[in-house]
Formats: sequence, C-alpha cells, structure tokens
Amino acid sequence: MDNRRIGLFDSGLGGLTVMKELMHMLPAESIVYFGDTGRVPYGGKSVETVIKYTKSDIKFLQTFDLKLIIAACGTASAIALPHLKDQYEIPVMGVTEVTAREAARLTKNGCVGVIGTAGTIRSGAFCELLKQENPEIRCVAVPCPLFVPLVENGYLEHEATRLIAEEYLEPIIKSGADTLILGCTHYPLLSRIIGEIVGDRVRLVNPGVCAATEIKKRLTAQGMLAEKPEEEPYHFYLSDDPGGFTRLGSMFLERPISGHVSRVDIEAYTESAL
Amino acid sequence: MDNRRIGLFDSGLGGLTVMKELMHMLPAESIVYFGDTGRVPYGGKSVETVIKYTKSDIKFLQTFDLKLIIAACGTASAIALPHLKDQYEIPVMGVTEVTAREAARLTKNGCVGVIGTAGTIRSGAFCELLKQENPEIRCVAVPCPLFVPLVENGYLEHEATRLIAEEYLEPIIKSGADTLILGCTHYPLLSRIIGEIVGDRVRLVNPGVCAATEIKKRLTAQGMLAEKPEEEPYHFYLSDDPGGFTRLGSMFLERPISGHVSRVDIEAYTESAL
Repeated sequence: MDNRRIGLFDSGLGGLTVMKELMHMLPAESIVYFGDTGRVPYGGKSVETVIKYTKSDIKFLQTFDLKLIIAACGTASAIALPHLKDQYEIPVMGVTEVTAREAARLTKNGCVGVIGTAGTIRSGAFCELLKQENPEIRCVAVPCPLFVPLVENGYLEHEATRLIAEEYLEPIIKSGADTLILGCTHYPLLSRIIGEIVGDRVRLVNPGVCAATEIKKRLTAQGMLAEKPEEEPYHFYLSDDPGGFTRLGSMFLERPISGHVSRVDIEAYTESAL
Repeated sequence: MDNRRIGLFDSGLGGLTVMKELMHMLPAESIVYFGDTGRVPYGGKSVETVIKYTKSDIKFLQTFDLKLIIAACGTASAIALPHLKDQYEIPVMGVTEVTAREAARLTKNGCVGVIGTAGTIRSGAFCELLKQENPEIRCVAVPCPLFVPLVENGYLEHEATRLIAEEYLEPIIKSGADTLILGCTHYPLLSRIIGEIVGDRVRLVNPGVCAATEIKKRLTAQGMLAEKPEEEPYHFYLSDDPGGFTRLGSMFLERPISGHVSRVDIEAYTESAL
C-alpha cells in the first residue's frame, strides 16, 4: 500500500480528461493537478520552450510527496519527456507511449492515424513509437492547431468546428486508417464530432483511458495502490488566476470541481533555457 | 531630432499590424519589436497575469535606448497599462485611448461597437474611454476569443471564420452601431470578413492606424522625429524560438521580415506577482 498522491500536470485544462479516467478507475487515489494556465497553450511553442515549461511543472509537483508524476499533456509527453524523464528519482510517465502501444494493438489493417498539436506532430513521437511496436505500421499524422482553442471556448459541436475538423481529418480518412490516436488531451471532448466525420469503422484511442489503465496496472503490480483517499483527495493548482476554472474545468472533468484550488507562481520554478 | 528607437511590444505577433502602420507613416524611425510568443496569448488570462507579463515586456525593452514604448497589444493596453504607465520615466503609450478617441470622433449616430479579447472586453476599458470622450455614446462590446487563434493559423477568409464571426458580430449589427473598434491588434487581418458581415455602413477603426497617427503627431510636436533610420532599422525579439517567425510575421507586417531576429529569455525580466 502506498497512500502518497499521484501528480498530474498539463499546459492547461486538457489534462483533466486524464484525471477524469484516473478518478474513475482508481477512486482510492489522491491526486494533485497542476495546470499551467498562465502559459497555455504549449502546442504551438518550440521544443526548448516546452522543455523549459515541463521542467518547471515537474519541479513544482516535486514539492509534494508523490508516488508518480504524469505528464497529462500530449505536447509535453511527446516533446519534452524523452529529454527529461530519466532525470528524476520519482517515476515520470507520459501519455504517448501507452497510447501508441494501445493503437498498435488495436489496428487490424496496420494503418494508424494520429492527430495532435503542431508541436506533437512535428516531433514525430507517435509515429516513431508505433513503428517501435510494429515496423509494418503505416502512420498518418496531422496537426490540428485549432482544436485546443475551439475546445477551450466550448465549441464542441459547433458547425465551424465541424468544417475545420473535416479539413483536418481528410488525410486520415483518405489513408484508410482503422485506428485514430487522439494525441492531445483536449481532443476526447471532440470525440463525437471526430467520430461522426471518420465513421464507425475507425477506432478512436483516448490517451486518458490508456494512461489510467496503465497506471492501475503498474500500481497494482508494485503493490503501490492507495488504501483510501485523503479526506480532501483532489488538489488543483494553476499558474493563472483560478477564476473561471470551476466552470471550465467541470466541462473537462465531466463532474463538478470540488477540492482545494489555488494559484502557484510558476516563474519561481522556471529556469532560463538560454 | 531624436534618433533613439521606438519600442513596441505585444503578446505575440499581432502588434506587427501596429508596426506596419508606423513603418509606413514614419519611415525614418528605427524600431525594436518584442513579441512574447513564449506566453502568447494574453487575451484569456487574468488581470494579475497580464500585468506581470506587461511589466516584464517593458523591463526588457528598457534595456534599449528608446524614446517611446508602445503597448501594441489591445489586452495589455486595456488591462495592464492603466496600472503601470505612470511608473516609467520613458513615455509608455497604449492603443486603447487613441482608438477610442478616433471612434468617438467618427460615430455619427452615437453607437459604437467594440470587439476584443475576453480580457479586454471584461475590463470595460474601451467603453469607459468612449464615455469619457462623450457621455452620450452607447457602447456595445463583444468578446471574440477565437479570432486570435484563427488569425494565427491563417484562417483569414475561411468559411469557419465567417460562421464564428457572424455569431460574434450579431449583437453589434443589432445595436445599429455605425462604428466598430477592432480592439485587438490581430483583428485588422480579419477586416475583410468583418467588413462584409457588418456592411459598408459601419466604419472599422484600426488601432494600428490610430496609434501610428498619434505617435507621428506627438513626435512632430515635440521635435522628436528621427532624422534617418539606423543602417539596420528593425530589430525583432521573441520569447519563443524565432523559427517560423519570418513566414507568419510577414503575414502581419504585409512585407518580408528583414532585420535582426533573436530570442530573449523573458523569465529573467519577470517578477513574481504573488
């Protein structure tokens, strides 16, 4: 048994879709969430900047007594973790590897689509991981830079979102992929519209579900599950003012936000990259 | 004569629409531009965070020998400058006051529309300034949070942009406003689509044109115009990697980016807000 908390971080609120799955699968766990809302989004920023921000996010989470840190952010996972994750004593896990593994397992025709932020797709991380799983897999990766702002503004089923999604997803449909990785933790909120466009034939792979399943497996195997949650099991920290977080966060978490919410001065944890 | 440079800053690239007008109206001036691309956008962030970032942007620009600093960003001008602008020895000027003054002068029926980021509209700055000019003016202000990401992704004339703009602009059209303030420096790039939706009857007020006109007037009155530009008159600094800046920046500047471009570690100029 290990009652220490699990730490999760994201560029903003998207990581709450991962937290949602964790809360569902592991209700005894206590969780600290950090959202870098003062510097959101990461998806269009450079590798150096995303590494610098990810380092500071982990540094802040290390101020808690945690058993595991999860980069609940597709961009941080794809771009920054390969450079960082072995530097820490505490295990730091991203969402890309487990998601790619699940997609490689699911595909029947060997063609997998990947959608993500500009940074994630530019990194080539998902395609590389898919090919490590199975060199025969054909990978079609498309950046969808407008999905994050559309989701953050609640345009989940808007006609404009549909028009943009149809354009983004065209190469995926043309490729004949039977599996599509939602490579950004915001995208599960667009599952419905994406599913309608690509059709039933294409399986959508949600990184939150993959990560939560893997975490449950790991903690169980290592005897590190929590016995019961703390009295206040969920703590949220944000680098911008938390005003509005309760409303918008509930959309991602699909339940009302309850628990401690406060602001953190992330500059204090940020080192110069130059 | 005063050959010192003019400093301009913005949350990202939008301020280049102001720089474009300055370059056009004052070709003898040398300009330093700082774009906070590592923390863009400001528009959805809190007052405290925008003040913290604006202070650091000004602090960085103060490392140059300047005669004037311009907040070429609607959000920084509306939210942060009222708290900051009298703290500096060097004049610091925003785009909101001159733009509101011009709109108040232009309106014939006394009804003025304002569009801007969520933060700008929440601040009420434009409506307050319009009423200071003329207490009879009726002001209809609408936040357009998706315009910045649409512009940054080059969706200037896309059908999705049109659908979103039609919804945003509906209250402006209904109000009968004859004048519309483009309260964010990104919005002039959407002039065509906005103009088509609101119709010829509505005058669009571009903060870049208003600011450049005012700066020319002030520098002329004070005998502070430059004699001739430096050999390399335009210097660009960005807080994220400058890769891609030349291409995207040229869209805003409507001419190829030439001149010195480099990265600055803006954290070194940022103080804790807490």
